[in-house]
Amino acid sequence: RCLLPPFLGLFQGALLLFFALFVTYDEPSAQAEDANLVANQVYSTFPFFQDIQVMLVVGLGLLLTFLPRYGLSALTHNFLLLNFSMQWALVLQGLIHHFHHGQVHLDLHKLLISEFAAVTVLISVGAILGRTSPCQLLVMASCEVPVYLASEWVIVNCLGVLDVGGTITIHVFSCYFGLGVSKALFWVGQKPLHPKETPTPRSDLVSLVGMLILWVFWPSFVAVLCQPGNAQHRAILNTLLAMSASAVTTVVTSSLLERDGKLSPGHLQNGSLAGGVAIGAVADMAMPPVAALALGSLSAMACVLGFRFLTPLLGRKLGLHDQCGIHNLHGLPGVLGAAASAVAVLVASKDTSGSHFSQQALCQAEGLAVAIGVSLVAGLFTGAALRLPCLARPPERLCFDDSLYFKFQGQDESLGPDSTTEEGVLALKE
Amino acid sequence: RCLLPPFLGLFQGALLLFFALFVTYDEPSAQAEDANLVANQVYSTFPFFQDIQVMLVVGLGLLLTFLPRYGLSALTHNFLLLNFSMQWALVLQGLIHHFHHGQVHLDLHKLLISEFAAVTVLISVGAILGRTSPCQLLVMASCEVPVYLASEWVIVNCLGVLDVGGTITIHVFSCYFGLGVSKALFWVGQKPLHPKETPTPRSDLVSLVGMLILWVFWPSFVAVLCQPGNAQHRAILNTLLAMSASAVTTVVTSSLLERDGKLSPGHLQNGSLAGGVAIGAVADMAMPPVAALALGSLSAMACVLGFRFLTPLLGRKLGLHDQCGIHNLHGLPGVLGAAASAVAVLVASKDTSGSHFSQQALCQAEGLAVAIGVSLVAGLFTGAALRLPCLARPPERLCFDDSLYFKFQGQDESLGPDSTTEEGVLALKE
Amino acid sequence: RCLLPPFLGLFQGALLLFFALFVTYDEPSAQAEDANLVANQVYSTFPFFQDIQVMLVVGLGLLLTFLPRYGLSALTHNFLLLNFSMQWALVLQGLIHHFHHGQVHLDLHKLLISEFAAVTVLISVGAILGRTSPCQLLVMASCEVPVYLASEWVIVNCLGVLDVGGTITIHVFSCYFGLGVSKALFWVGQKPLHPKETPTPRSDLVSLVGMLILWVFWPSFVAVLCQPGNAQHRAILNTLLAMSASAVTTVVTSSLLERDGKLSPGHLQNGSLAGGVAIGAVADMAMPPVAALALGSLSAMACVLGFRFLTPLLGRKLGLHDQCGIHNLHGLPGVLGAAASAVAVLVASKDTSGSHFSQQALCQAEGLAVAIGVSLVAGLFTGAALRLPCLARPPERLCFDDSLYFKFQGQDESLGPDSTTEEGVLALKE
Repeated sequence: RCLLPPFLGLFQGALLLFFALFVTYDEPSAQAEDANLVANQVYSTFPFFQDIQVMLVVGLGLLLTFLPRYGLSALTHNFLLLNFSMQWALVLQGLIHHFHHGQVHLDLHKLLISEFAAVTVLISVGAILGRTSPCQLLVMASCEVPVYLASEWVIVNCLGVLDVGGTITIHVFSCYFGLGVSKALFWVGQKPLHPKETPTPRSDLVSLVGMLILWVFWPSFVAVLCQPGNAQHRAILNTLLAMSASAVTTVVTSSLLERDGKLSPGHLQNGSLAGGVAIGAVADMAMPPVAALALGSLSAMACVLGFRFLTPLLGRKLGLHDQCGIHNLHGLPGVLGAAASAVAVLVASKDTSGSHFSQQALCQAEGLAVAIGVSLVAGLFTGAALRLPCLARPPERLCFDDSLYFKFQGQDESLGPDSTTEEGVLALKE
Repeated sequence: RCLLPPFLGLFQGALLLFFALFVTYDEPSAQAEDANLVANQVYSTFPFFQDIQVMLVVGLGLLLTFLPRYGLSALTHNFLLLNFSMQWALVLQGLIHHFHHGQVHLDLHKLLISEFAAVTVLISVGAILGRTSPCQLLVMASCEVPVYLASEWVIVNCLGVLDVGGTITIHVFSCYFGLGVSKALFWVGQKPLHPKETPTPRSDLVSLVGMLILWVFWPSFVAVLCQPGNAQHRAILNTLLAMSASAVTTVVTSSLLERDGKLSPGHLQNGSLAGGVAIGAVADMAMPPVAALALGSLSAMACVLGFRFLTPLLGRKLGLHDQCGIHNLHGLPGVLGAAASAVAVLVASKDTSGSHFSQQALCQAEGLAVAIGVSLVAGLFTGAALRLPCLARPPERLCFDDSLYFKFQGQDESLGPDSTTEEGVLALKE
Repeated sequence: RCLLPPFLGLFQGALLLFFALFVTYDEPSAQAEDANLVANQVYSTFPFFQDIQVMLVVGLGLLLTFLPRYGLSALTHNFLLLNFSMQWALVLQGLIHHFHHGQVHLDLHKLLISEFAAVTVLISVGAILGRTSPCQLLVMASCEVPVYLASEWVIVNCLGVLDVGGTITIHVFSCYFGLGVSKALFWVGQKPLHPKETPTPRSDLVSLVGMLILWVFWPSFVAVLCQPGNAQHRAILNTLLAMSASAVTTVVTSSLLERDGKLSPGHLQNGSLAGGVAIGAVADMAMPPVAALALGSLSAMACVLGFRFLTPLLGRKLGLHDQCGIHNLHGLPGVLGAAASAVAVLVASKDTSGSHFSQQALCQAEGLAVAIGVSLVAGLFTGAALRLPCLARPPERLCFDDSLYFKFQGQDESLGPDSTTEEGVLALKE
């Protein structure tokens, strides 16, 4: 009855067929000079690529384990979705962009672009984590990746928006897509607090480690697609400054908001990364270092304030369910970053007295509007599709529980047939 | 009475003596050009080396902590064995390969080769994890490293087998060595299930994190010894594709095998890595990308099916004990990879109409046979040696228990003299 | 009443002002040759920089979580102090070194130097971990960073001490600074054992993972500032050898000291890193590989013996409180490394018959004396300042407890108003 294996199995078959028919590697050239060039490209891209893989597979995976009984599922679904979405993006990219050139020549750069498409899925999942089945998540990924590729093409290639770190194309897009899905899927509105939803100090600790891993490697994510040389150097420095300011500002803001100057683990897990989200759109632009610091501070503030005030408000007024608070980590800082990019090109246009720079500022705003509009609409439709009964949405009672998706060794032997699986896991966990 | 300190202490002394007498660094050359060359070599090798260190020390260490009360021991023994085996391989390499050239010139490349020798030990340990003392493991390492170096020399240098990622020389070899040791050591056959052997959701989570770390850095392991340029680029891409296909196929296969489409954590922890094991022998060969995907899928299937059907069968029929299922992760995918390498050279020989390619296919098969044969025989002898009573094999009651090897602070104060140490740790853990 | 938010908020404001007025980036040059140069600098420094970030943020953070109820605080305070100290060092560096040149040009190298200043703070904290408030720690950082920058300038630039890996300038300095702070802060002497101070097997495991991460990336820390080429290659190899010898020797020494040949987790967590501390001063010098091995072994021995005998002795005789045993990990191996550097230059002077080398040996000794003297005095004064009542030193009852600094979700709902917060967390943790 579970649709997961046939869906995934068919997809793997189609992937193999597509690769067999259309995908090949570059012919190795015989000239030593070219080999040297390829080697240099590998050395300049591969370390960044590995850093990003660590971020997505380990860092983001651990960040999502703040739900104490849902760690295995969060980690596994994140891992599965990354691979599925990357493969799906490879196929779509091959079909759309390269089909009329005949053979698709695979290289590290194309894998990287597909990885970015997968990132949008992993972010959007945050809105509905724990209350959805893997089938629903895979269907969501199937819908989101093509919409992302199309919107990214429109925003970057047609509108000419500058967004080297994906602030608009990735973070804003995936946030509003996820919120759209959540709205359409949980239409009736805010869910009551689930007893398994509350983090424990231990799950908060593991999640914090995930945040720290993301924090450390974020500069690689922002800078990987920059022009090598000065632009990349500046992007790395700007990201480091923004993330450092975010970390300190998060502590200040969180301890001002909570009683007795205590910190909220959730604020730390998200606010410290807000600067990295916001800096993406401006990381390689000509702006003074203080701008990166200020943007990092502002976005961390926005993120923490969002958790404290906006999320409960959106829940009450719009019935919006946002499990991980992706609107605070990706939405608000993303919008801030987009605004900052418009300001940065405006200021630069003053300096060089060119009028096409002010057009560029308009561009950035248009890009933001397109990202929000397209993602919200597509998200709402996708969320409606996820309501299909065949996608096995978990019953409320079994949400946030690994035992619904994992068979633990020793469970059968020590426990009754099926009604007590849940209690069995509880017992194992004690 | 414990032989560990004198054994290790004497070894460290001998190591110092050997290094004092025979090992030196390259003379730094005065020419700027050479310095530049060395710098480039460092930049092109060191990041790969670090990735491999992370895999072995952190990734593999965490993967082995699925035994809930044996995490500290698994992590520590893995760490100790890595260092001991690497040093021992350095000594042996120095003695054998370089002795007749006089001084041994140490460099990063030689350390890397020694690290690979250590990997075989770390894999073989998986068959007997938890039921062996560190003394036994060190004796095993002392036997395995020289056999590995000899068999690797025969397979690669004499037979001319192509195996850039160590599928045959490392994975297949260490798997059958470990199984041989296990068979000779636990002669009477299958052990009954030990109460401390069953993973908990929490230990499964930590082990899953270890798998993810291995998964992310695996391309570095396969590609580090490739020719820089196209071959290395292709090896990285092939490994990425194979691992991605493995991840998805593991989920499909595991959820088909378990009731209600649930996943088994053990399948995930191993199957997702199977593609990396298999791809090693063919990673840098001229083959289309679809072959990497197919090989990754097939090996993941073989691994999961092996866990479900073959391991219980081997346990019943041959009385074979394989704690971590290394036969499923390293044996079956290794054999698959070796077969794939033979097919790949055959297909390539069709294209170029050379007959020496079909000889090469024979070569690959011979290499596989040598690896299996040598490792099984050497493993059986080693396992017999591990039965020596002086090596302090742990009593069944204290298997899979950290308290046998670790003194926990506060244990003495709060508990009775010696009979209750086990209960004390249990108490501490609750 | 808590001084943390105003202090940090004001600091962030001052940082922004300073950056706005004085800090800028290098002008990007128009020439392609220069762009290539910058790109190469980025590729040669950035991977090392990332490795060091992983060490400090993830590795050191996890190492400090051996206190079972203080993990979140240890990780968070470590993270906050790293960012605060780095920013503070950037400001001070800008003011002192570069002010008379006008604009400060920010680059990756300056960030790296600031990161090193932050390392001293993170090490010193080890002496007083768990019994201090974040306010106290920030005040300590504010004092330590300028003293470090001054002492580092005197030791390296005035005295001409050779110390590429920071053995003297970072490790010895921060150790005695931390001990000075501890002595002045906890004047009355040794604290009785706190019930929450004892590690559990689980917290020991997490701490061990932190050690392993530090162990893997340590070569990057030592070699990042070396001359590219032979010196850097040698520094990497020497560090690898020293750390490998440390790991094995720690196991030997620890199992000789404990009953039944058991290991102490605390010895492993520290001793395995001792070689990396000691090798810093000699890593790039012309010495045979055996010296690195011997130094690694010796320092690991010193570290483990220090834990077993010296720490209790210093506690009894001097009333010295050293929570993490930084004297054993940073003090003793640091002094050993400094001595080794003097010997190394003496031996080298024999070879080349130059008398200025024996002067250099004297230099190294002077550097060590300056580091110890300055840090002890400055530490004592800083510790006295930390006794100010406004800095909110935690009451003994709430030491080593996350609930003093973190507000856990669900705590308010499920528990009474305020007196039971501590018990609430205990309940949550079970």
